[in-house]
Amino acid sequence: MADVMIDLRSDTVTRPTAGMREAMATAEVGDDVYGEDPTVNALEAEVAALFGHEAALFCPTGSMANQIALQLLVSPGNELLCDADAHVVTYEIGAAAAYGGISSRTWPAVGADVDPDVVAAMVRPDGYWAVPTRAIAVEQTHNRSGGGVIPLDVLRALRGVADSAGVALHCDGARIWHAHVADGVPLATYGGLFDTLSVCLSKGLGAPVGSLVVGSAEQIGRARFVRKRMGGGMRQAGVLAAAGRYALAHHVERLAADHARAARLAEAVAPFGVLATAVRTNIVPLDLTKSSLDAPALAAAARARGVLVSVLGPRTARLVAHMEVDDAAVDRAATVLTEVLRA
Amino acid sequence: MADVMIDLRSDTVTRPTAGMREAMATAEVGDDVYGEDPTVNALEAEVAALFGHEAALFCPTGSMANQIALQLLVSPGNELLCDADAHVVTYEIGAAAAYGGISSRTWPAVGADVDPDVVAAMVRPDGYWAVPTRAIAVEQTHNRSGGGVIPLDVLRALRGVADSAGVALHCDGARIWHAHVADGVPLATYGGLFDTLSVCLSKGLGAPVGSLVVGSAEQIGRARFVRKRMGGGMRQAGVLAAAGRYALAHHVERLAADHARAARLAEAVAPFGVLATAVRTNIVPLDLTKSSLDAPALAAAARARGVLVSVLGPRTARLVAHMEVDDAAVDRAATVLTEVLRA
Amino acid sequence: MADVMIDLRSDTVTRPTAGMREAMATAEVGDDVYGEDPTVNALEAEVAALFGHEAALFCPTGSMANQIALQLLVSPGNELLCDADAHVVTYEIGAAAAYGGISSRTWPAVGADVDPDVVAAMVRPDGYWAVPTRAIAVEQTHNRSGGGVIPLDVLRALRGVADSAGVALHCDGARIWHAHVADGVPLATYGGLFDTLSVCLSKGLGAPVGSLVVGSAEQIGRARFVRKRMGGGMRQAGVLAAAGRYALAHHVERLAADHARAARLAEAVAPFGVLATAVRTNIVPLDLTKSSLDAPALAAAARARGVLVSVLGPRTARLVAHMEVDDAAVDRAATVLTEVLRA
Amino acid sequence: MADVMIDLRSDTVTRPTAGMREAMATAEVGDDVYGEDPTVNALEAEVAALFGHEAALFCPTGSMANQIALQLLVSPGNELLCDADAHVVTYEIGAAAAYGGISSRTWPAVGADVDPDVVAAMVRPDGYWAVPTRAIAVEQTHNRSGGGVIPLDVLRALRGVADSAGVALHCDGARIWHAHVADGVPLATYGGLFDTLSVCLSKGLGAPVGSLVVGSAEQIGRARFVRKRMGGGMRQAGVLAAAGRYALAHHVERLAADHARAARLAEAVAPFGVLATAVRTNIVPLDLTKSSLDAPALAAAARARGVLVSVLGPRTARLVAHMEVDDAAVDRAATVLTEVLRA
Repeated sequence: MADVMIDLRSDTVTRPTAGMREAMATAEVGDDVYGEDPTVNALEAEVAALFGHEAALFCPTGSMANQIALQLLVSPGNELLCDADAHVVTYEIGAAAAYGGISSRTWPAVGADVDPDVVAAMVRPDGYWAVPTRAIAVEQTHNRSGGGVIPLDVLRALRGVADSAGVALHCDGARIWHAHVADGVPLATYGGLFDTLSVCLSKGLGAPVGSLVVGSAEQIGRARFVRKRMGGGMRQAGVLAAAGRYALAHHVERLAADHARAARLAEAVAPFGVLATAVRTNIVPLDLTKSSLDAPALAAAARARGVLVSVLGPRTARLVAHMEVDDAAVDRAATVLTEVLRA
Repeated sequence: MADVMIDLRSDTVTRPTAGMREAMATAEVGDDVYGEDPTVNALEAEVAALFGHEAALFCPTGSMANQIALQLLVSPGNELLCDADAHVVTYEIGAAAAYGGISSRTWPAVGADVDPDVVAAMVRPDGYWAVPTRAIAVEQTHNRSGGGVIPLDVLRALRGVADSAGVALHCDGARIWHAHVADGVPLATYGGLFDTLSVCLSKGLGAPVGSLVVGSAEQIGRARFVRKRMGGGMRQAGVLAAAGRYALAHHVERLAADHARAARLAEAVAPFGVLATAVRTNIVPLDLTKSSLDAPALAAAARARGVLVSVLGPRTARLVAHMEVDDAAVDRAATVLTEVLRA
Repeated sequence: MADVMIDLRSDTVTRPTAGMREAMATAEVGDDVYGEDPTVNALEAEVAALFGHEAALFCPTGSMANQIALQLLVSPGNELLCDADAHVVTYEIGAAAAYGGISSRTWPAVGADVDPDVVAAMVRPDGYWAVPTRAIAVEQTHNRSGGGVIPLDVLRALRGVADSAGVALHCDGARIWHAHVADGVPLATYGGLFDTLSVCLSKGLGAPVGSLVVGSAEQIGRARFVRKRMGGGMRQAGVLAAAGRYALAHHVERLAADHARAARLAEAVAPFGVLATAVRTNIVPLDLTKSSLDAPALAAAARARGVLVSVLGPRTARLVAHMEVDDAAVDRAATVLTEVLRA
Repeated sequence: MADVMIDLRSDTVTRPTAGMREAMATAEVGDDVYGEDPTVNALEAEVAALFGHEAALFCPTGSMANQIALQLLVSPGNELLCDADAHVVTYEIGAAAAYGGISSRTWPAVGADVDPDVVAAMVRPDGYWAVPTRAIAVEQTHNRSGGGVIPLDVLRALRGVADSAGVALHCDGARIWHAHVADGVPLATYGGLFDTLSVCLSKGLGAPVGSLVVGSAEQIGRARFVRKRMGGGMRQAGVLAAAGRYALAHHVERLAADHARAARLAEAVAPFGVLATAVRTNIVPLDLTKSSLDAPALAAAARARGVLVSVLGPRTARLVAHMEVDDAAVDRAATVLTEVLRA
């Protein structure tokens, strides 16, 4: 079915290109649990350098990369602050609490519009019997709210909040590439603001599998143990890392095209009052609370016309532009959505 | 020191009265792990009846009573919603996450001014891969914000939210007695709105030790196991339960006097712009963000003049009226605080 | 019923004596969460001194005291070694794993006959990717196997094993008083062999509620936080600590009488081949695997004749001598058990 | 280095063959989090069918497959029984306790020589306050003890133990293929004895990455959530599953050659008294407790002569035969080890 459908559910659905498959087929590999996979090692060094950090660790998923970072930063019973729609407390099946014992409090779901003063007011210092805050996490771009980009000055202010309070700052950077392309901020500039980052090769960049956690050499040393505890110590992972290296070399700058296509989709649905927020990158969030269609109904109607849409909640849906959706597909999807919403 | 000081730090400092000690000294006891302590059994039956529930379980602390309830309601990796200043995510050392694996998201710290619509919008239904909400917790009265009372109609609206979403509603009722006295709502009316409650005998009611978790017979059956896992399976606990029974019989209605004394303290500090919120029960919250004194400095200055004040954060402090603070003590404390704040 | 029955189920069933109740009724108390209960402080200092350690912490139960110690010694994902019948992995509802994330491996259930070479061979050093052992726990006396006493030279050898491997040694000393009385080993000699101990006032010593964890000042400082996370931060706990101080002053040396009474019970059941092991202290373990009666049947038959017996498993039962069972009661129980086993 | 060395450390070091790479390069893929990767789906169906179960789930590692199964079978605070050298409590970084809250007790480290009566005696039934046993895990073949094969009649007896007690039986079948080849037992016969199995494609079978957990449709439905919580929800995992399918088609029966080569290595070291146990499959365990060389020294000396050996502990080492070690390499390794051990 996926071959004939226009799949706007997620940028995770992208399949490896011919060039990427060739890179995988010819990759030199070794046993990465022993640290001997040359392709994994090369990818880890490249990504660490991109973000100006000492080290990085290859993981099977972005969820694992996030959870490893959080477990490094926050001991059981201590506290993480993040927004109420953050991926780390929404889509990772409760792992931070269930496996990391991490207590979380959340600021309101404002997506990329983070207010550093609100965050600062929530931080709990050590020494008053209250659960101490150990880390603040932000998500760049912010998935659930619609791919928004947190402005650089806001991130700098958050860094200041973290420094003042003596807590760590983590970036869930699954789509940090999109922020880089949208705002023109160098990846190393982003990297310099965070204690740890997770970055994903398997969403907009199009690799089949793989994410990395980025941090100091000391952190990544500990991360290797946590990764094994999570069940992420793969062996000849170089076959996957090769795809990631290819993606970094070929698929970052092209994200601008996805952003343009998302804007085209946003334009199509805007007249129906369902666009949840301005579209900055590749995600188009739909808020159907005032629509006659709920999210499952919208998705079913679109699917019947060859367009797949993601249902995030009873009245929340999402369209995502990615490598496998070209201009023609976007045009057709725009038409279908217009028809469905008009009905 | 405590004998000559006026101790406004907390209502937890109250010592058993002569009558209460007599009740303890003559209590009939047995091994409560075997369910054979008659005084514990009587207390549990009384408290269950007060709140119109089937059963209750005696615990050494309110924290344990809360955590047992939360572990009954929310499985590891599932979600609890509460306010950002709730005792359960602030003062219980992260137990919900560390021991229960419970993921939490929080609505803004509005104390007793809970907005049911805000809560409703945060609830995550089952079935969309997002972490499902399993319980909502409120705190009656609300400690950290200053002893506010959540109005009955708000609680009823929250019950509606919980019912619509199919999630449980828990009440951290450590000071629910104060709400009952302040608003005149019968305890059974409160009880009928919640799946589980915790109630505390050792704060305003003046018992030395003891709280209960209240719920259905099935829940309390499971709670006995959780209590033992938490290390709360005491043996001849009847010596404590006897104090609790005495407190229920003699110390509930007298809370009105504490409320009046707290109002007197609030009146004294009000001119200095540090009163954080209107005072409804026995807690007077101080917000020193605009004062020249920070919280440790205020506490030190008051202590030097014979008044003990609680420091909740760098710029947050608290006064609490309770059984051991009579009118004369309140007058003297009011004078001291006026002098300190004026300086 | 308990008043007319001879209750041999456990030494936990003992009720406070008149002298103990008097001590409780007149105890000076304060808020122990603030460290201000003078009776608790005195008890903690006494117990620390008895065992030659720097500090001790009062807890509601022996299970909590054990679990706090284990959480101090072993981080989540690291390892505890203990025997397969140890209280810490048998009767504490899985708390070490469920709350502490502590991985455990066990040596065979040999009770007090611990073989230090077997333990040494199980210890896993750090640095080979295998889960590292962080603590070894022994139980003195050993409950489930029948109150056996681990000889002093065996404990010294285990200390050597722990030192060689760089791991901690914990003593579940709920009944260490019985070992002290049976073998004449000073409590401080025992204390000197362990990094941490738990000791219980509520079993043979007859206090209604209370145990302590014993260790260094640094450990006990951290233990205060863990105790609060476990829900064990009681307020005017001095009412319980007073009973504990009384028990230490009056009920240690009298344990010799319980040991003699247990020996009398053992003598009575020995002819029936159900005595599981030689009786050294106050516990008489029964192994019914070759009996025509299973444990529930034995317990029911004895109960019908006025004697309560503990069922530990389908074919395992236990008799325990304690303060409330005098010579006459033991004689009658011996007669009843003889009749029941003969039938 | 790995290219010129003879690597006997583990069968995890094998790199994909040309045929396997071709299968990966041409694999049809989709988003497996959505259940839409046809190659993953085909592999899962194949493996489920091989073992006669309803369903299977692809995972990045054997550790994750084991841990998912254990989390399905044992709730936090309940108990797993396994041997003291089991992979699940040795090499998985304590995940069962740290993430699953699973309490474990272990029978002595007897490798494949499991005694069902010993296991039966350890099982704790429900209903006596003791932590209840919920699962028994065995490891086929048994890695740390030297690749031993648990005989079919022993497994059947263990199934009987599990059935009698009402507990589950899990097989860590990372190398169950070797048992199948060594003993000629059909995989479906093994499958029929267990509630859940984990099987690994990335050890002896030579795939770069991938394991599966096998069980009922209901279990595997829940396993998908646990896998995501563990961070194992990969996207276009078909590139890995294709290697796995190739491995199943081409690399199972050839394990007999590895077994013969391991026997040849065992023969070479046997005269030095370091062979820990009879060699049945592809693992040669070395016990150096009586040797003048410790394990790191042996490994260093062998490495200097071009042979890599695994160090499992201070005096424990291991040789493993696998696809990349041919007869000539084995001959040379045998010579090197003879020289090193003779010195």
